[in-house]
Amino acid sequence: MTSHRDPISSTSRTRLRRKPDRGRFDRASIERILDEGFVCHVGVVDVQTPRVIPTCYGRAADLLYLHGSTGSTLLRALAAGTPLCVTVTLVDGLVLARTQRTHSVNYRSVVIYGQARLVSDPNEKARGLAAIVEHVVPGRAADVRPPNRRELAETHVLAIGIDEASAKVRSGPPLDGLEDLELPVWAGELPLRTVADEPVPDPSTPAVLRAGPPVYVRDYRRPGG
Amino acid sequence: MTSHRDPISSTSRTRLRRKPDRGRFDRASIERILDEGFVCHVGVVDVQTPRVIPTCYGRAADLLYLHGSTGSTLLRALAAGTPLCVTVTLVDGLVLARTQRTHSVNYRSVVIYGQARLVSDPNEKARGLAAIVEHVVPGRAADVRPPNRRELAETHVLAIGIDEASAKVRSGPPLDGLEDLELPVWAGELPLRTVADEPVPDPSTPAVLRAGPPVYVRDYRRPGG
Repeated sequence: MTSHRDPISSTSRTRLRRKPDRGRFDRASIERILDEGFVCHVGVVDVQTPRVIPTCYGRAADLLYLHGSTGSTLLRALAAGTPLCVTVTLVDGLVLARTQRTHSVNYRSVVIYGQARLVSDPNEKARGLAAIVEHVVPGRAADVRPPNRRELAETHVLAIGIDEASAKVRSGPPLDGLEDLELPVWAGELPLRTVADEPVPDPSTPAVLRAGPPVYVRDYRRPGG
Repeated sequence: MTSHRDPISSTSRTRLRRKPDRGRFDRASIERILDEGFVCHVGVVDVQTPRVIPTCYGRAADLLYLHGSTGSTLLRALAAGTPLCVTVTLVDGLVLARTQRTHSVNYRSVVIYGQARLVSDPNEKARGLAAIVEHVVPGRAADVRPPNRRELAETHVLAIGIDEASAKVRSGPPLDGLEDLELPVWAGELPLRTVADEPVPDPSTPAVLRAGPPVYVRDYRRPGG
């Protein structure tokens, strides 16, 4: 789902000072990376100290949704509007060069700056939670019980605008200097990929309900992955 | 390589307030996670704003090494001793529950707080850079050209003590309430794993040097993975 909003805004925070040729600032490039990933690293400042916490997310149009317990220190800080940075990183391969210094990693990453908005409208809250489940396992949200009133009350849902954002991409072979090309060592790229193994049924499943997993579990793959 | 230092120190920052049963505070658990991963997310504070940047790392005993250009804003801030948070996250699987709220992810993560030390001793600097290459591709560092004087001068190497650190681990099936076990939907875990595809040789390789990749590339896998 590509949204039709204004382009991503470029600010001093999202401008790439190093290797600007790796930058991507168009909404489609940023959304493709966000849609392939499902774990982000959220950074906040806690009394002068940075904290970086991994969590799942969902995307709906130009919003990223996060969720968590109302008892979580991180969620409370985000709900209070503390400045945040959300980073999503996909590792595509290892770049084996002929010198130690030119070794690298092929990756795609997105960095979003901003503040979260605490979702209070019950309908948007339910939509945000469903968006997270659906983002991690497309096809899943409608198959399972939505949150009840107690679960909604115990959960914070946060919306983050995908506005001040940028992507950074490295791909392709190593970039060794001409004088190093004759070094007698194999050089190239080792592509990496995430795969799903055999699904493991929950042993708590009552015997009468035991059946094979649905097709979206058996054939699980990330969009674009 | 397991070091024999004091145990990891527990502080108010590394204590887990939520789900403390998921915490691991022993050095061996923390080192195993750091050794299986190779990309970390580094958080710093930049004029009240958090920044979270992905980068590769290496571990040598109780130190984590990072590197980057002396021209990088992030590296300069780290070199100046700004407080940092380094987070490493390994995703082991998706937890498909019977309710949206109980969906989860099986993961292992490590969070390290502290400050970096700018490595100035040329020998430690060379060791730190080699440790990063060797961490990402075990067996590689000795096969390629070490950094020359110019490359060393253009590179910051940073050492971070693995002292104020904690790990967090979720594993196993979904944790649905008894009242939800009868819901007629498949539930369980979908294990995820990173695999390497066929290595892609660098097209810049001179014809006389074209040969198959070494065994550490052909049989690449993460320690413990």
